[in-house]
Amino acid sequence: MGDKVKKLAILGSTGSVGRQTLEVVRAYPQKFQVIGLAAGKNMELLAEQVLEFKPKFVSFQNSRNELPRGGWTAFSMEEMASHPEVELVMVATTGKAGLAPTLAAISAGKTVALANKEVFVMAGGLVLSEAHSRGAKILPVDSEPSAIWQCIHGEERNVAKITLTASGGPFRARPLKELASVSPEEALRHPTWKMGKKVTIDSATLMNKGMEVIEAHWLFDVPYDRINVVIHPQSIVHSFVEFVDGSVKAKLSPPDMRFPIQYALSYPERWPSDSHPTFSPAATGSLTFESLDSNRYPCFQLALDAGKKGDTYPSVLAAADEVAVDLFLSRRITFTDIPKLVEDALSQHRPQRSPSLDYILAADEWAREFASHWRPT
Amino acid sequence: MGDKVKKLAILGSTGSVGRQTLEVVRAYPQKFQVIGLAAGKNMELLAEQVLEFKPKFVSFQNSRNELPRGGWTAFSMEEMASHPEVELVMVATTGKAGLAPTLAAISAGKTVALANKEVFVMAGGLVLSEAHSRGAKILPVDSEPSAIWQCIHGEERNVAKITLTASGGPFRARPLKELASVSPEEALRHPTWKMGKKVTIDSATLMNKGMEVIEAHWLFDVPYDRINVVIHPQSIVHSFVEFVDGSVKAKLSPPDMRFPIQYALSYPERWPSDSHPTFSPAATGSLTFESLDSNRYPCFQLALDAGKKGDTYPSVLAAADEVAVDLFLSRRITFTDIPKLVEDALSQHRPQRSPSLDYILAADEWAREFASHWRPT
Repeated sequence: MGDKVKKLAILGSTGSVGRQTLEVVRAYPQKFQVIGLAAGKNMELLAEQVLEFKPKFVSFQNSRNELPRGGWTAFSMEEMASHPEVELVMVATTGKAGLAPTLAAISAGKTVALANKEVFVMAGGLVLSEAHSRGAKILPVDSEPSAIWQCIHGEERNVAKITLTASGGPFRARPLKELASVSPEEALRHPTWKMGKKVTIDSATLMNKGMEVIEAHWLFDVPYDRINVVIHPQSIVHSFVEFVDGSVKAKLSPPDMRFPIQYALSYPERWPSDSHPTFSPAATGSLTFESLDSNRYPCFQLALDAGKKGDTYPSVLAAADEVAVDLFLSRRITFTDIPKLVEDALSQHRPQRSPSLDYILAADEWAREFASHWRPT
Repeated sequence: MGDKVKKLAILGSTGSVGRQTLEVVRAYPQKFQVIGLAAGKNMELLAEQVLEFKPKFVSFQNSRNELPRGGWTAFSMEEMASHPEVELVMVATTGKAGLAPTLAAISAGKTVALANKEVFVMAGGLVLSEAHSRGAKILPVDSEPSAIWQCIHGEERNVAKITLTASGGPFRARPLKELASVSPEEALRHPTWKMGKKVTIDSATLMNKGMEVIEAHWLFDVPYDRINVVIHPQSIVHSFVEFVDGSVKAKLSPPDMRFPIQYALSYPERWPSDSHPTFSPAATGSLTFESLDSNRYPCFQLALDAGKKGDTYPSVLAAADEVAVDLFLSRRITFTDIPKLVEDALSQHRPQRSPSLDYILAADEWAREFASHWRPT
């Protein structure tokens, strides 16, 4: 193992990925210096994290009085992500929140570990061209893009095809006619993964997998017609990569976000870890795969279509979905209204070609406005 | 793709791996110059190959008159394998036959694509130290070692554990008490792989997998207690590698030797190939894994024990097995006599510590003599 200390800022430190990032820091304290912590609403947990990790910079939405006093400076996420003392930025926010700080980090040439897939969905082209011109690295944190990244390690030029796996969520076997009446509690009960609320609902609709296809398209420079998705209920194979000679590599592990989070943090190294259970073929017994039924998962097709169309469509998709998931969680629309709302937003949107950041954000605003006034027919 | 022509000699060109090597040469004629062909008994096919590929050197056991005349020189396999005009030697022989030519090739600093696993079983330590001192590369051709090699590509230092897969052969579900009466024809009917006779019988007894464990131990410098074997009846996952962080990579493809043969020949590149079917997760449906039942496969344990003991034991194992398989194929012993013969040879052998090649060959001779006089009790 190298002796280099990574100077880390965590955006979204109180969320699921943020907390697990800090678990890795606890397991390898000599490897990290936590320079910055940023959180949204959970000030109680942020206060504990500030006491434990003693960051130099803290970003928060509520009152300063809720945090312990000490030697830290209050910063915006953008200031923190682009500060000269920070080297590695973990973007563990969800939805739109990560876009501006990610662009700030990239413009400052930082290495970005990106768990917030909406950043690529909204502005994949912009993010990549900026990263390219600034020499910034973007490391995937989501389990499936991380799996692809690990499989192509050392032979990026030989990739022919990518297959992302999807668990199928909690409603994979539910009769279609019952989907309109599923509750938020049922939708939040994911069969294999423990994740934040937004991504868990997106995993039940497979919007999440559609967004991962867009993310994989940008991250690995693979055209959409060479990216497949297959349902894999056990969530142990996290993706397949087929190479030009027809050989396939897969990345496997139990469904535990600590694997991809630690890999993004340890990259280009791997660090020994005994703290989480590993995959045993004989104990697992069987790995199964089935085709994706697009009638069951209309959000997946909406995401894929928006990704292929490009322009401001993916931004509208992400914004409309974010609002729709909120409306579903607060019981104001049904589970099957989510794709209807998103579809209506996409069909009524007037796209902007090759949009700048301003146009991307304007499309986002428009879609949020549209979605918040949307009513089921 | 690079423009460099690989100057190739094929030892065992008329066998299963040899013929498939020439299929790759046919598919990529601009990539290869066939400098040498060597075969044992099948002079008719060798004659055809000589006409088609016009090698400079030919090695054969029978009369020169059976081959077409032309501009070739008759060579021994050792002469051919070490000749300055040859760069890459495909060792596609079986049993003991490949040992001397492999050592000759390595001593001359050639790159060796090794399909003849008995070479590592008999003399792994010798072969590796010679390869190291001469700067010769050894590339695995067997599907499972090739899978491991591909999975660890670029992160050789991070390997924690290796799991080789085994189909379990044609008798995986046969009642144990019926195994004594299975016929050579049944044993040659492998459920997933098309291979030569020797390796097919070794796959039915799992001697083959035990030898692969020894091969993997040497090739990848992994201690025996970190090499596992799991039964995988579909033969699609060709091995698993677990890294120090608990992540696992697998290599998958339909059971077709053209994949690993082509990879060894194209390495460090991969060449596009549309000629063989590729793996589709949804079409495959299910991949299953079960523990190895050592009562069913006593040859596996014999190989593993011989590998761990080292010295001249593995050489005795390989020689006794080669004779036992011949005796079984000619119906002079039963299927369940194979492990009995090998076990008796190992138990009566007086080992030589850190053996030179002469001692390894003497142990081989002794074991062949012992095996040919062995009678079931």
